[in-house]
Amino acid sequence: MKIPEILQVETPHMPGSLASVLKVIAEEGLVLEHVTTLHRDQGRTLWEITLEIEEGKQGLLRERLNALPSARFIAWSDRVFDRHRGGKIEMRSRIPISTQQILRDIYTPGVARVCLAIQKNPEKVYDYTYVGRAVAVITDGTAILGLGNIGARPGLPVIEGKAALFASLVGLSGVPILVESTSNEHFVDVVTSIAPSFGAILLEDIAAPRCFEIERMLRERLQMPVLHDDQHGTAVVTLATLLNATRIVGTLLEKQVVGIVGLGAAGLGIARLLSAFGIKRLVGTDLREEAIARLAALGGEGVSLEELMRRADVVVATTGVKGLIRPELVRPGQIILALSNPDPEIEPALAREAGAKLAADGKSINNVLAFPGLFAGAMRARATAFTDAMLLAAARAIAQAAPEGHLVPDALNTTIHESVAEAVASVVEHTAVPGVAAG
Amino acid sequence: MKIPEILQVETPHMPGSLASVLKVIAEEGLVLEHVTTLHRDQGRTLWEITLEIEEGKQGLLRERLNALPSARFIAWSDRVFDRHRGGKIEMRSRIPISTQQILRDIYTPGVARVCLAIQKNPEKVYDYTYVGRAVAVITDGTAILGLGNIGARPGLPVIEGKAALFASLVGLSGVPILVESTSNEHFVDVVTSIAPSFGAILLEDIAAPRCFEIERMLRERLQMPVLHDDQHGTAVVTLATLLNATRIVGTLLEKQVVGIVGLGAAGLGIARLLSAFGIKRLVGTDLREEAIARLAALGGEGVSLEELMRRADVVVATTGVKGLIRPELVRPGQIILALSNPDPEIEPALAREAGAKLAADGKSINNVLAFPGLFAGAMRARATAFTDAMLLAAARAIAQAAPEGHLVPDALNTTIHESVAEAVASVVEHTAVPGVAAG
Repeated sequence: MKIPEILQVETPHMPGSLASVLKVIAEEGLVLEHVTTLHRDQGRTLWEITLEIEEGKQGLLRERLNALPSARFIAWSDRVFDRHRGGKIEMRSRIPISTQQILRDIYTPGVARVCLAIQKNPEKVYDYTYVGRAVAVITDGTAILGLGNIGARPGLPVIEGKAALFASLVGLSGVPILVESTSNEHFVDVVTSIAPSFGAILLEDIAAPRCFEIERMLRERLQMPVLHDDQHGTAVVTLATLLNATRIVGTLLEKQVVGIVGLGAAGLGIARLLSAFGIKRLVGTDLREEAIARLAALGGEGVSLEELMRRADVVVATTGVKGLIRPELVRPGQIILALSNPDPEIEPALAREAGAKLAADGKSINNVLAFPGLFAGAMRARATAFTDAMLLAAARAIAQAAPEGHLVPDALNTTIHESVAEAVASVVEHTAVPGVAAG
Repeated sequence: MKIPEILQVETPHMPGSLASVLKVIAEEGLVLEHVTTLHRDQGRTLWEITLEIEEGKQGLLRERLNALPSARFIAWSDRVFDRHRGGKIEMRSRIPISTQQILRDIYTPGVARVCLAIQKNPEKVYDYTYVGRAVAVITDGTAILGLGNIGARPGLPVIEGKAALFASLVGLSGVPILVESTSNEHFVDVVTSIAPSFGAILLEDIAAPRCFEIERMLRERLQMPVLHDDQHGTAVVTLATLLNATRIVGTLLEKQVVGIVGLGAAGLGIARLLSAFGIKRLVGTDLREEAIARLAALGGEGVSLEELMRRADVVVATTGVKGLIRPELVRPGQIILALSNPDPEIEPALAREAGAKLAADGKSINNVLAFPGLFAGAMRARATAFTDAMLLAAARAIAQAAPEGHLVPDALNTTIHESVAEAVASVVEHTAVPGVAAG
């Protein structure tokens, strides 16, 4: 597997010295992600170069760089680790506790009145606690990124990252929860038992097919928004991307044949949302019969990869299998989203060369675009669940926010998330009294 | 039950107008907690008066105040509720996520390297996540303050208050967790399943006797600091108070007969710590045989209230029963801590009048003095459990920090908590490799 690495190299401050470094990197077949100057002093420059490299190949690159007359390998940088030191999040007090009077108001004895007010009227918990802004970000560590089942605590940096993004982009309080569970039923029991602590639940990086069963049970038992991001967040961003992709190439998404390559959590989530959007002709491919059965339940048809590539106008791949789509399978005029990270099923440039009208990979299509606004909107409107209408509204809002000619907007533009939140909140229907436990 | 209320009264800016208001309050038998001026304009002053009043008696006070020639009742102020609006805590990002490079470092793809590093070396989770500063503040809502079993969500303001204090006093991240459980075993299973999300666990407001069993099981199963604050936090502050009380009256605590009135979570926690401290002669009283048996297991002796008051040099009461200790039971020379809030077992003034050498109530002895430093010290030293040595060190540090002639220091002085943390960390012994699950 390729991992992102950051390289520090020193060169003399003279023409061609960085070029010689980049030439070596290119000859090793490595794609450059980022270059920046760290400092320049006494005629020497320290460069920081981010690239993706197969694990274990770092030593070879180091040797080749040191063999250059005008470059010196300094270090593999720890910038990523530095940014993680001490963790990425912290719980803060919203009130400076500076006097005895404040202490007595927010703790004993004052707090007793607030507890009694909530006991009398349970809705007041949204006014006088942080619960209406608190999202549990929950994983069991069974499908962390592309890394597979690495266990609960090694997955903590991912869900801390989501909590940091919730805080930074929409001001919600994401709370990382790692669950070590023995079965689906046990996982659901644990989450249900602590659910009153939160206003909504984001499930993250849970392996298929257990993620489907877990999400279904939690939605049945809890009257609060529950969303498995790998299914639905990815689906929302994919739909937004396809709305703009079809607009750019001048076709109508509703009328296309869409092929889904890989029917795991992401693939089936995409199939489900596209079906809700109105796509009538869905084909899909996966090695597992169980996955094909799930697609069939959505009205899709299981086919071989080759047949899918022949029939589909739009191809969306989420297999995690690098290079699965060979260029000769590409049908001229296709739209291809090869979403697996870090290595796509087909490099976009290769797909375009083979005749695709438009191709993109997972780097340009980030689900950070969806989940912050989805939860901000749902919680603001006190939704008791996520509905298809809310997911579709989010996808349309993301698509509309993209600059002309682009597939998606910049995820760090916070006005995007506010637009998504507004769109989501505007379609929330209140059919039941909000609360914690269903039934 | 008395509740704290905040009254706004307007008077003309002339001699005696506040005095007439306070006279009415005194005639109603109400103790004044706080008075302040809100504003003064055109010869009229708006006063904010905090007092404790029996629920339902507010209307009568209002009528009597409006009957005064120089006062006008304005409102029962919502200052306490205002301070709770939107909750008291929020999760924040420690890193401003302002560029794509930062996003790629703290989320995908950079975060994958950090996950792998933790998978390879589990100890690194303390370096690269917030887990080493994250304390779960957990309740089931069965014994919220003096309010009893009011349910999980109505207890949230209390545990949010604790989280706010953790943040404000020692920079730890308290995470409120409400558990709805069906049995002790179930509660322990739920907490154990989510324990990897945190570095330590504070149990709060769980009813006796289930709190004893729950804490014991959690300590057995988890290799992280677990503390039921109502037992041990209160015990630490009580021991600190008694160290200074005996110093003030010129006796040696170790040599006293100590009587514990009420053997619930707090009473038994106090008995346990005093025994660990070296108190040889402990007597106690409680209506429940099961509670007396627990005291006996600590080497104490169950007696009647009357016998206890005859034999004890030092009396500590935590029954929640207002006025339980009648003045005629007080033996001259006793030290009496009547800790029930808001109404003590005997008013300190009354106890002193009856001959007590020193008397105090729960208002002056706040467990906010103990838990922040206890957890900060334990987590800094990566302790795998709380030990008696750590609790005793905390009690001595709190006692030493009190100004000359005072029982306890000011809880809002953050240097106190740092002293406690240092004292606790200094006695941590590492007998096992720190981790999450025991065995």
